[in-house]
Amino acid sequence: MSMSRTDGKDGARERLVVIGGDAAGMSAASQARRLRGPDELEIVAFERGHFTSYSACGIPYWVGGDVPERDRLIARTPEEHRERAIGLRMRTEVTEIDVAGARVRSRDLASGAEEWTSYDKLVIATGARPIRPDLPGADAPGVHGVQTLDDGQALLDTLAATEGRRAVVVGAGYIGVEMAEALINRGYEVTVVNRGEEPMSTLDPDMGRLVHTAMEAMGITMVDDAEVTKIRTGEDGRVRAIATEDAEYPADVVVLGIGVRPETTLAKAAGLPLGEHGGLLTDLAMRVRGHGNIWAGGDCVEVLDLVSGRERHIALGTHANKHGQVIGSNVGGGYATFPGVVGTAVSKVCDLEIARTGLREKDAHRAGLQFEAVTIESTSRAGYYPNATLMTVKMLAERRTGRLLGVQIVGREGAAKRVDIAAVALTAGMTVEQMTALDLGYAPPFSPVWDPVLVAARKAVAAVRKNAG
Amino acid sequence: MSMSRTDGKDGARERLVVIGGDAAGMSAASQARRLRGPDELEIVAFERGHFTSYSACGIPYWVGGDVPERDRLIARTPEEHRERAIGLRMRTEVTEIDVAGARVRSRDLASGAEEWTSYDKLVIATGARPIRPDLPGADAPGVHGVQTLDDGQALLDTLAATEGRRAVVVGAGYIGVEMAEALINRGYEVTVVNRGEEPMSTLDPDMGRLVHTAMEAMGITMVDDAEVTKIRTGEDGRVRAIATEDAEYPADVVVLGIGVRPETTLAKAAGLPLGEHGGLLTDLAMRVRGHGNIWAGGDCVEVLDLVSGRERHIALGTHANKHGQVIGSNVGGGYATFPGVVGTAVSKVCDLEIARTGLREKDAHRAGLQFEAVTIESTSRAGYYPNATLMTVKMLAERRTGRLLGVQIVGREGAAKRVDIAAVALTAGMTVEQMTALDLGYAPPFSPVWDPVLVAARKAVAAVRKNAG
Repeated sequence: MSMSRTDGKDGARERLVVIGGDAAGMSAASQARRLRGPDELEIVAFERGHFTSYSACGIPYWVGGDVPERDRLIARTPEEHRERAIGLRMRTEVTEIDVAGARVRSRDLASGAEEWTSYDKLVIATGARPIRPDLPGADAPGVHGVQTLDDGQALLDTLAATEGRRAVVVGAGYIGVEMAEALINRGYEVTVVNRGEEPMSTLDPDMGRLVHTAMEAMGITMVDDAEVTKIRTGEDGRVRAIATEDAEYPADVVVLGIGVRPETTLAKAAGLPLGEHGGLLTDLAMRVRGHGNIWAGGDCVEVLDLVSGRERHIALGTHANKHGQVIGSNVGGGYATFPGVVGTAVSKVCDLEIARTGLREKDAHRAGLQFEAVTIESTSRAGYYPNATLMTVKMLAERRTGRLLGVQIVGREGAAKRVDIAAVALTAGMTVEQMTALDLGYAPPFSPVWDPVLVAARKAVAAVRKNAG
Repeated sequence: MSMSRTDGKDGARERLVVIGGDAAGMSAASQARRLRGPDELEIVAFERGHFTSYSACGIPYWVGGDVPERDRLIARTPEEHRERAIGLRMRTEVTEIDVAGARVRSRDLASGAEEWTSYDKLVIATGARPIRPDLPGADAPGVHGVQTLDDGQALLDTLAATEGRRAVVVGAGYIGVEMAEALINRGYEVTVVNRGEEPMSTLDPDMGRLVHTAMEAMGITMVDDAEVTKIRTGEDGRVRAIATEDAEYPADVVVLGIGVRPETTLAKAAGLPLGEHGGLLTDLAMRVRGHGNIWAGGDCVEVLDLVSGRERHIALGTHANKHGQVIGSNVGGGYATFPGVVGTAVSKVCDLEIARTGLREKDAHRAGLQFEAVTIESTSRAGYYPNATLMTVKMLAERRTGRLLGVQIVGREGAAKRVDIAAVALTAGMTVEQMTALDLGYAPPFSPVWDPVLVAARKAVAAVRKNAG
């Protein structure tokens, strides 16, 4: 280790240091640059990996073959950032934040050289790290995460080199079900092993059951309520099977999709405030609480859930981009805030669309809310129009007030994005009664005369009225 | 004419009389029946046509062949209504409303017999009538409206009997462009003759231009700025051509789609209050203003535009159904209101999707509003995802306040229903700045990381800020 100078800034300019070169960090850097030129603001960004500003959400579609090549997932390369006068240091890991000294220590991963870089303003965008099972074999050849582009490439290399066609996906959240689709598209026999009662634990179990049934109908073997107890490897060290307490599932390749945690090792060591989910806590301007010159955004922070009033951790590119915009505006001398989320998420498995926003039943209980829950079935288009498909909409409304609390949708084409109606209504604090009057787009190719979300709202109104006491 | 007795009611029950057996009228009757049984409430409904509760909006898809048979468009037949104890009188036209006497006069269209029926409560749901050009030949064989199921059947009969393949559609609003699609699907050479500067005058002309270009690319001949001056017929009396001041367009069949007006002849004769567009004026409970026991809904009423604060006339099945629900609830002893509309409408021509909500530029001017208008282009899915298609989103925001005023979208698959985001935001009175933080569903198959509506909102925010003075 060669410990060099602290790289001081020249007096005239402010220096912004950004830790993390993906969505939140580089959006912040780009937006700050838009507002303040290189004469006023120096920007130094550290990225330990090989890529910047890429869509991690797109990895399943690249692995599955829908996206033909990796570079399509890269929104902006290091060179493009540098052309905008952003001083990017690739393959350089920040190893320490010295808050009192207003500097960060970094290590060049190739040379091992370390140095300190001082900052006037700091943006922490260290992202999330995938949860890996604490089991022997979790790092065996043939076992893959899909968090980064490098992960995706490694998985594709394994698929190309593997003759067997049996794949096991561990986890049945967004990444798990999307990877199941990817592997089906690649011609694998897919088994999804899932710890939860049903797949998609971001839904209530009754809605998750619909996903279970639909995925089985696609030929996917669904194993619920199953904890992985062993990752069995062969004599060559490669993965051979996934074992649970009850059974063993042969595997030529294993994909881990059991979620992510905020990557806040640096922040924790620096004494920055973390929430109960391990993410950084910020104010509404995305400034780390109690720290006037440190901002944080993306997968490493907790966000305010506007429905429950509690902090949550949600790793999602769309939030990371918004955070970056807000941070960049504030760092660049403008003003913007990120008020919070309502917890909207959409996904698909082959032609099955899955969406949710707001609170599930257990979230509502936890938040101390009493509610009515209703479920309806309707169609994506007028019933008589070709390719009208069924969708199930579940809606939660607060008891007495009738305020919308959450919506979950499982269906086929046209189901998922309908959740946006509820997402906006939640943000606006609408009641289900107000929703029944919403003037939504209607024409037979696009909706029944009562949109499925309105059908659910009508049923929720009836439930709230019935139990008004 | 045999003028018979006034059909008095028996003392115990209230009698509800409904004029018009389509969406609004029969929804009202059905909802009232749900709340009050036949022992409490007698329901008599008059319908002059052959059908009840059908989807007029579906007619273009039936004519175009997407819907194989007429009966699919019928949500509930007269028999089904009668089974629910609704006394339907089909082919019976109400010819007079005697408000002072609380009775209506009706004529059986088959026998010519007339009678008076007294009411305790009256629902007027007389719908709209198509505008027909005041020109000789407008009723010639081969010239068709598409307002009713009978109209649709007559057009289909003409198409079956006609060898020529040249069709002219007069009008380029929703009905006009949908009928252009229908006729293209039937293998016709289609010319659309349109009085407006661009097709779809419910959009601003710059957005209408996109529709013009796209329809031309489908092989449709688009003639804008053209008033029909003559409908030329042959020696057999059948239509031969449509003439404008500048040109003549040969036509084996002509479809009129130049809009509708509220059918309020009866209401006007009865002295009921009409608005500037000729529709009945109601209160928020859909009661005709100044009349405690008369309700009106559907295409014969004017509705409050929540954005401009003015009454409008909008003939749309989704409103008619909502009106019927509200009226039926109130008539049945419950309580419901229809707060108004924001002017949402969606349509398609082949694979082109068209949507709008809120105010156009000229509506905003008329309402005394100053605004910023921005237009962006984005994609329906992540740019790297297969079948991502371009869409154009135009957004109007009020000057200084930044309040959303309207959105127009023209694109391909996935474009139209995005307008619902704006429809809910308009209803909630959101600013474009608030919209930029909306937590909308994001995953690569469904949206770019910034949904196109949010991209437009961000640009609108910048425009509002720039001209904040």
